[in-house]
Amino acid sequence: MLRRVLCTMLLVGALPSLAEGSQGHISVVLLGATGDLAKKYLWQGLFQLYIDQVSSGHSFTFHGAALTDLELGQKLMFDVLKKLSCPPDESPNRCAVLKDQFLKLSQYHQLKTAENYTALNREIGILLHQEGLKEAGRIFYFSVPPFAYTEIARHINSSCRPPPGAWLRVVLEKPFGHDLESAQQMAAELTSFFREEEMYRVDHYLGKQAVAHILPFRDQNCQFLDPIWNRHHVERVEVVLKETVDAKGRTSFYEQYGVIRDVLQNHLTEALMFLTMELPGNLSKAEEVLQCKLQALQSLRGLEKQSVVLGQYQAYASHVQEELQKGQNYVSTTPTFAGVLVHSDSLRWEGVPFLLTSGKALDERVGYVRVLFKNRAYCTQSEALRDAGHSQCKPKQIVFYIGHGVLNTPAVLVSRNLFRPIMPKSNWREVVGQPDLHIFGQPLSDYYVYSPVKERDAYSVLISNIYHGRKDFFITTENLLASWAFWTPLLNSISHQAPRLYPGGVENQHYLDFEMVSGELAFTVAEPVELLNPSGPMPSDYKTIQSKFRKSPLVSAWSEVLISQLASDVEKTASRAVARSGQFHLALSGGSSPVALFQRLARHHYDFPWRHTHLWLVDERCVPLTDPESNFFSLHNHLLQNIRVPYFNVHPMPVHLHQRLCVEEDGGTELYAKEIVALVANASFDLVLLGVGTDGHTASLFPHSENGLEGAQAVVLTESPVKPHQRMSLSLPLINKAQQVFVLVMGKGKHDITTQISRVGREPRKWPISGVSPSSGQLVWYVDYEALLG
Amino acid sequence: MLRRVLCTMLLVGALPSLAEGSQGHISVVLLGATGDLAKKYLWQGLFQLYIDQVSSGHSFTFHGAALTDLELGQKLMFDVLKKLSCPPDESPNRCAVLKDQFLKLSQYHQLKTAENYTALNREIGILLHQEGLKEAGRIFYFSVPPFAYTEIARHINSSCRPPPGAWLRVVLEKPFGHDLESAQQMAAELTSFFREEEMYRVDHYLGKQAVAHILPFRDQNCQFLDPIWNRHHVERVEVVLKETVDAKGRTSFYEQYGVIRDVLQNHLTEALMFLTMELPGNLSKAEEVLQCKLQALQSLRGLEKQSVVLGQYQAYASHVQEELQKGQNYVSTTPTFAGVLVHSDSLRWEGVPFLLTSGKALDERVGYVRVLFKNRAYCTQSEALRDAGHSQCKPKQIVFYIGHGVLNTPAVLVSRNLFRPIMPKSNWREVVGQPDLHIFGQPLSDYYVYSPVKERDAYSVLISNIYHGRKDFFITTENLLASWAFWTPLLNSISHQAPRLYPGGVENQHYLDFEMVSGELAFTVAEPVELLNPSGPMPSDYKTIQSKFRKSPLVSAWSEVLISQLASDVEKTASRAVARSGQFHLALSGGSSPVALFQRLARHHYDFPWRHTHLWLVDERCVPLTDPESNFFSLHNHLLQNIRVPYFNVHPMPVHLHQRLCVEEDGGTELYAKEIVALVANASFDLVLLGVGTDGHTASLFPHSENGLEGAQAVVLTESPVKPHQRMSLSLPLINKAQQVFVLVMGKGKHDITTQISRVGREPRKWPISGVSPSSGQLVWYVDYEALLG
Repeated sequence: MLRRVLCTMLLVGALPSLAEGSQGHISVVLLGATGDLAKKYLWQGLFQLYIDQVSSGHSFTFHGAALTDLELGQKLMFDVLKKLSCPPDESPNRCAVLKDQFLKLSQYHQLKTAENYTALNREIGILLHQEGLKEAGRIFYFSVPPFAYTEIARHINSSCRPPPGAWLRVVLEKPFGHDLESAQQMAAELTSFFREEEMYRVDHYLGKQAVAHILPFRDQNCQFLDPIWNRHHVERVEVVLKETVDAKGRTSFYEQYGVIRDVLQNHLTEALMFLTMELPGNLSKAEEVLQCKLQALQSLRGLEKQSVVLGQYQAYASHVQEELQKGQNYVSTTPTFAGVLVHSDSLRWEGVPFLLTSGKALDERVGYVRVLFKNRAYCTQSEALRDAGHSQCKPKQIVFYIGHGVLNTPAVLVSRNLFRPIMPKSNWREVVGQPDLHIFGQPLSDYYVYSPVKERDAYSVLISNIYHGRKDFFITTENLLASWAFWTPLLNSISHQAPRLYPGGVENQHYLDFEMVSGELAFTVAEPVELLNPSGPMPSDYKTIQSKFRKSPLVSAWSEVLISQLASDVEKTASRAVARSGQFHLALSGGSSPVALFQRLARHHYDFPWRHTHLWLVDERCVPLTDPESNFFSLHNHLLQNIRVPYFNVHPMPVHLHQRLCVEEDGGTELYAKEIVALVANASFDLVLLGVGTDGHTASLFPHSENGLEGAQAVVLTESPVKPHQRMSLSLPLINKAQQVFVLVMGKGKHDITTQISRVGREPRKWPISGVSPSSGQLVWYVDYEALLG
Repeated sequence: MLRRVLCTMLLVGALPSLAEGSQGHISVVLLGATGDLAKKYLWQGLFQLYIDQVSSGHSFTFHGAALTDLELGQKLMFDVLKKLSCPPDESPNRCAVLKDQFLKLSQYHQLKTAENYTALNREIGILLHQEGLKEAGRIFYFSVPPFAYTEIARHINSSCRPPPGAWLRVVLEKPFGHDLESAQQMAAELTSFFREEEMYRVDHYLGKQAVAHILPFRDQNCQFLDPIWNRHHVERVEVVLKETVDAKGRTSFYEQYGVIRDVLQNHLTEALMFLTMELPGNLSKAEEVLQCKLQALQSLRGLEKQSVVLGQYQAYASHVQEELQKGQNYVSTTPTFAGVLVHSDSLRWEGVPFLLTSGKALDERVGYVRVLFKNRAYCTQSEALRDAGHSQCKPKQIVFYIGHGVLNTPAVLVSRNLFRPIMPKSNWREVVGQPDLHIFGQPLSDYYVYSPVKERDAYSVLISNIYHGRKDFFITTENLLASWAFWTPLLNSISHQAPRLYPGGVENQHYLDFEMVSGELAFTVAEPVELLNPSGPMPSDYKTIQSKFRKSPLVSAWSEVLISQLASDVEKTASRAVARSGQFHLALSGGSSPVALFQRLARHHYDFPWRHTHLWLVDERCVPLTDPESNFFSLHNHLLQNIRVPYFNVHPMPVHLHQRLCVEEDGGTELYAKEIVALVANASFDLVLLGVGTDGHTASLFPHSENGLEGAQAVVLTESPVKPHQRMSLSLPLINKAQQVFVLVMGKGKHDITTQISRVGREPRKWPISGVSPSSGQLVWYVDYEALLG
């Protein structure tokens, strides 16, 4: 029926855009046409698209679709369409005509079975044929739960692809998975149906006017920003989305996701990337923009459990219990508040703290991206004489104000002592007034303030960009997976962590304030006792256990705590050695476990006496030092690059001599032994760090070989059962001359060998590690709970 | 006469302290007893000492001395003594009695000739003998111009030393020299008369109550300060002494000294040291305190011309012309205002900017030492809800307020969001009130504020410390020379620099505000044209000259400008090479000239692509790499230690193989040549930096030897005419394969060879440098004015 109306209209030429469609026809299919998102934003966005593009030369039809049958669906959908509002800048008359046309161009379809999709495809084909229209493309907007994606995608791919020459754009709404694995799986499925350029993953934050203007702002103001948009000038960046609402009514979703997946992994990360990415040579080239953004994402430093503070508003538990029919004893660790400290390892941003914060049930609703610059000025005149606008001693900041809050409008703010920004006059106008308003610690009059000439809803911005095929406003598969790769390890490590409970609203007071302390985040105010969650893990769960293992001291804890304890102990040993002899000789093993230690030392132990430390290798693989397999290469990347050890104090093993590897005649082992004797008093290292292999090997001393277990040779060549086979290693007698030996054992995979060696005596030929027993030094075992307890 | 009175008094027992002097007698001799300083502070300080110590068990006599004859001197001195005031906390009755006693214990001496000194010594001896007193010690307070020091010191040493068992303390007033050389000379002279422990050099700032309390404050509050008193938490330190007065009436002194010698070299440096020095284990041990302070002084990074901004108040020139009878054309470059950016290379303070500022004719009189902490907090609650006292988001600072200014009293201020300081209640009391007062950007109510229970003049504090023999309140010879060693290079480099003229007082507005830009200081507001000093050096004087030398491009300038230009050009070359090939191969020469380049690169070129740079040596001395004579050692100390080049990219020359140096059979030259061939495309370095010796040598290619000038050998062993004779060097053919060669020539000593090689053709056997001519690359000469123009 509707189609007939449409066709009639077309025949009488009442719809010029469709009739004169020399640029071709676009069919928009909105799946989930009667759902909340569609009702609230999407239909309005499509109507706005129609208003904007009615004279573009394209013709349009709009196809709402859902599982509901035709009659009811049609009714529900047209109830929504009738309520579409006219944009304030549109003349009421023109808008009324356009709305009438829009309704006539829209129809409802039940899309449930394969046949439904085939029918839709046929109908589009017939219409175009009848009207003599060339097809430009089809947009399928998935406003449906993700579990329905695969089936819909299969149907579209098999039945609804436009004919060759016309494009297909499928628009996907989050969530895009739950972690890296699920996102990869989902992406793999979608990729089996659609090409990358056909997929438009929506993050509606990218359509927020203040966020969407970050890159253009940086580009247009690059003359001012170029010298200061870096670690030398930026003190910190805050990306914040505060909400006053709680999760009531949405706990079935929220309980699975929590604030990090809901807001930080997507919205806040995306906004941050616009700030930190390198500016592409040409902003109008979407691929360049996306490439730069991907690089920025990939240069983020991995997060640790200590990078985050978590909260949960107190009523959340009861909301979950009610809505999900959970018992009184059900405890949720889902965070509704998070503050995360993010760092980038890029040259531009190294060391600058990026604080991402979001939460529900807070005291205000506001979103912003704030760049605070360092104060590098000294103002000689007395404070009383300083003029607000120009003083270089006032704070300097640039704020992209996303909305709500005291301003209650999107805005761009630039401190007047920075520069007067260049803003496109067609879109942004300067705002003056409200002299009493204070924002970010300063009166509004201290800033240049710009707000949009026309406020536009994020979805209407995004729908326009889908129409224009601007992929840089959307999340590519690479981008999505890079973001999940960044967030997933943190999500895993905090999955059982009890968040701090907070009362909600203004009563939160200072409970949720947090601070950066040695590269970690911590709440400023101690946990209020009355809010303690009695059934969550207790702080003591994270403490280290001190005991005995093989008659030597044992330190055991969860891996992160263990590493931080070990790092502290290494620093203490170092400081004592330097105080005693002016030097610290440290021999380090290869493998993966020490990497965490290296990172911990580099990032958290600023006062480690590196200048007086000599670094030696316990063992090395017979590969060039620049080979990623090399132990030294790993040591270099994870530690040396980030600290300042004198060049002369670094002692890689000479496995590569005369352009060949570990050839006995080249005398590498003797060379290293001589170097040790020349520099280390009594050839007794201050500290040797060892690991244990699943076969009981330590250093590169392997079972069933006598090589290096006894005798006078300090350094030996050995054979590993796994590639690369050839190794160089300190010998057991040399290791046992050390002042201290720390053995680090981590991970479930080491549980069996840990159990085994806890029972055996000294049998180095079977288990080389059992031969470690410093003759006059001390041995300490650092074994994590997984290795110790399985 | 006076002595007779004294003796009479003693006999009748009216002066119990002298009569019962079981602890012995102290004679205080004030030289310059009728001078300004004595009138204003010293007699009052001595009176205070007497009041405080009258019951200590010591007896005292006070001997004023001057060149004036007895009668007149006596009159002048007693006019001063009669006006001595009673401290407000002393009961008027007791004070009146004590003042009367003090006058009786005081007498005037003419001290002019050797005989005068002998007479004084004899008088003291007779008095003590008569009274049966043991001598505890003698204090000679030099309140005389420094030119008189030597003679007085000689007389004291030869005629007025106390007998064995009693101490001698000579108190010296600044100026202590004019630069390092004059200070050394003066110190050497004094040292020929007095032992170090006998000398008390006064810096009256150390007696200011707020300054004197810095160390006790740090000690007593170490539980709070330990974690934050370092570069991770301190954002900056400001040490400021602003004066409203100008130099009128004092220009004969001031014109020779200027603000840096007058205030920064001594007062502000001393105050800064109290802040930055390591806290000694025991504050009551003066030697420990002095040792820590000396270390702090020695770890200050050398200043450059760019570390300072200088000003001169406009009327200064006319003051000088009037008072010193100079003509209208006389131009003074003496600064009356200075801001200096100081850095420490200690682990604790690395990177923290210390701003020292002082000036005359400013808009207010105030002195303070201010420690501003980094803001590491994020406050989740909205600004409106933040409580002033506790919010971690408010600025955090600790201020030692020396005096004057809005507070008009010495004070210690600690932000309330830091901690409540522990203050000795006997000396400091908490101040509340003045809620409207703002200081350092915050209302006074944001701080804990303490002021002294008793305000004490600096001189009375110091005189008390002289009495107690507390040497840590004074400047030791080592301390003094370390301070001059730090300041003298800057003073020399700015001696002809025109300071910015400023109107004086409130009219200065923003003219004297300054900023840190890439480790340098610069005024914020551009030089106002109308204030330009027309006869001072013009900015163009400091520009670089671009011309030709030996048919190749020549860049010439004063040495500092030349180095900064060269550093920029090296960075540009590096960036281009990395953009082109992903790598930059840079070969560097030894010697002293490149050191300035290394420092410049390390400190000012943050974005240099070090991670992609390979560093090679142009030449090396045949010494171990860790020998201070080694070129690599210098490169390491001045550059490598301060940047991040991957270990694999550093290529020292293999002069030390098989534990011997440059033995031909060890094949070091072939090894280096192979390494070059393996890593550098076509063995063509991207950039080779060369120098020129006074004999025309370059690299380690010396005149009158064919070694390395021709042939296929890329690396050669050579003989230097100077020690160490053996060298390893790149050959001329290899150098000439480079893409770019920069030759750096600096200093007057190079003028002759520069002139010579400007005239000769290609004669490498005579002048190896003349053989440098890249076959397909570019050669650029960087020659400073001294080398070029002599």
